[in-house]
Amino acid sequence: MIKFFYAPHTCALASHIALVDADARYESVRLDFRKEEQRKPEYLSVNPKGRVPSLVTERGALTETPAILAFIAQSFPAAKLAPLEDAFGFAKVQAFNSYLCSTVHVAHAHRMRGYRWADDPAAIAAMQKKVPASVSECFGLIEHEMLEGPFVMGKGYTICDPYLFTLSQWLDGDGIDIARFPKVHAHRRLMAERPQVKKALEEEGVTTG
Amino acid sequence: MIKFFYAPHTCALASHIALVDADARYESVRLDFRKEEQRKPEYLSVNPKGRVPSLVTERGALTETPAILAFIAQSFPAAKLAPLEDAFGFAKVQAFNSYLCSTVHVAHAHRMRGYRWADDPAAIAAMQKKVPASVSECFGLIEHEMLEGPFVMGKGYTICDPYLFTLSQWLDGDGIDIARFPKVHAHRRLMAERPQVKKALEEEGVTTG
Repeated sequence: MIKFFYAPHTCALASHIALVDADARYESVRLDFRKEEQRKPEYLSVNPKGRVPSLVTERGALTETPAILAFIAQSFPAAKLAPLEDAFGFAKVQAFNSYLCSTVHVAHAHRMRGYRWADDPAAIAAMQKKVPASVSECFGLIEHEMLEGPFVMGKGYTICDPYLFTLSQWLDGDGIDIARFPKVHAHRRLMAERPQVKKALEEEGVTTG
Repeated sequence: MIKFFYAPHTCALASHIALVDADARYESVRLDFRKEEQRKPEYLSVNPKGRVPSLVTERGALTETPAILAFIAQSFPAAKLAPLEDAFGFAKVQAFNSYLCSTVHVAHAHRMRGYRWADDPAAIAAMQKKVPASVSECFGLIEHEMLEGPFVMGKGYTICDPYLFTLSQWLDGDGIDIARFPKVHAHRRLMAERPQVKKALEEEGVTTG
């Protein structure tokens, strides 16, 4: 059975929702970041990067949200989580998820994880200060250029949706009013009503308003 | 015909090499970053993010290196650039490319593009200072945990290889001696000898030692 390693309030939520969407059988393993469990040898033997999520299959461990999401879509084709028979449509899905991973998540990470890119406390503070501007710029692009609505790719739900929902949860903490992005806002509300999203959040012990 | 937008000395080289590997028919369009051509309305209508690469097909534009690489592999299956019939193997390829995109490229970008994440010149200088350490940490993980050798995924060449080659080209500029990473070093030399790599570099007008 698939073993899914996550921590609450991280990007692992996207893969968690997709596992529920796929009706996959999996065992979830919660890591406590406050105890730095992601840096302990036991977990580093699963994922040497010391990050979440990791998805351990009988063939080994997979990491990186876009890769795990595409793997879930391909492994559970009946759930129709991506246009698997259409290389262009699949690439559009992947391009969106890659943007979330390499640009949006990274912009956000400068609030809490600035130590990755500078040692000077004043520099880390300067990075935190820019987060509302850089994350807003990303969500402006998503709002105006990418999110077709009601789902990211239009009428059809895909693996882009749990990922966008996960990252849009972080806007409030980044000091950004989601109401500035009406389509993203509507997407977050639509997603929050889905039973699969509620189930994944419940498994992670996260309560929503 | 496919239209490929690139600029020399950028991550677009990975997709460029893969297009040659696939024996694809394409027209390449060079953007001059010194003239900020990537920010001009003509290009923003292709890619609103103002970045390279972009791959324009008859169905529209694709962006983001991992998505473009997977699209090339899927669109030209005869070139065998990824394990297309094996969801787990494909996910391993994707996880590697996602790591390059979201962690390695991002660590490197703090040398030249710190303004994305802070406005204070002292903070930007502090970011530049940490690049050798953060990029070295990434390449340490690649060397010890990821690169099977001689190619990234072992005996078989995949779309991971042109991407790693592209990013390993940047080590010297980041002040890192590639000899510290013998497997990465051997990979760079192996790749540099491939006619497809030479052809892509030649088209970009880049001469190598």
